[in-house]
Amino acid sequence: MGSAPVPAELLTLRDSIDVIDAELLQALAKRFALTGRVGELKASMDLEPFDGVREAEKLERLRTMAAELGLSASLIDDLFSRIMREAVLNHKQLKEARG
Amino acid sequence: MGSAPVPAELLTLRDSIDVIDAELLQALAKRFALTGRVGELKASMDLEPFDGVREAEKLERLRTMAAELGLSASLIDDLFSRIMREAVLNHKQLKEARG
Repeated sequence: MGSAPVPAELLTLRDSIDVIDAELLQALAKRFALTGRVGELKASMDLEPFDGVREAEKLERLRTMAAELGLSASLIDDLFSRIMREAVLNHKQLKEARG
Repeated sequence: MGSAPVPAELLTLRDSIDVIDAELLQALAKRFALTGRVGELKASMDLEPFDGVREAEKLERLRTMAAELGLSASLIDDLFSRIMREAVLNHKQLKEARG
């Protein structure tokens, strides 16, 4: 139990997972570059950092797409709620920094 | 405050964010296909569903990569802890289903 040698296929799978995780990080970095610009725009136009209606609509669309891909709805809710919370936090900090 | 028309650049940015979110979902679906296969392998070889040392090392590497990309360490911790929790849950269910 756990002391057997790791099978070659498992090592290959782990390498593939590492590649996907790097892709996920790259995509997240691109997303935060974009939401950073959204924050700048919102701050410059005195728009609210958080748009609850838009966020709820967005989550609903993501849930639908996730279901088509066989992903758990609660997983997607948790992940994207966390991502959007971070973006809103960045927007608020930017808005406060501008006074 | 909030009643002004949405600027064109904001709409363009939102479209770009939607494209990235679709990429994130696709990458997640690929990741769970791979971890699903990991779960099958582990169950067939009676290996433990959860490997705490490997998960901690993985998170540490992700944090380093995230820092290089300017991403918050706590964000990456939260996201990948949630992703890995889901994968381990799937592994356990598979193992239990096999008795």
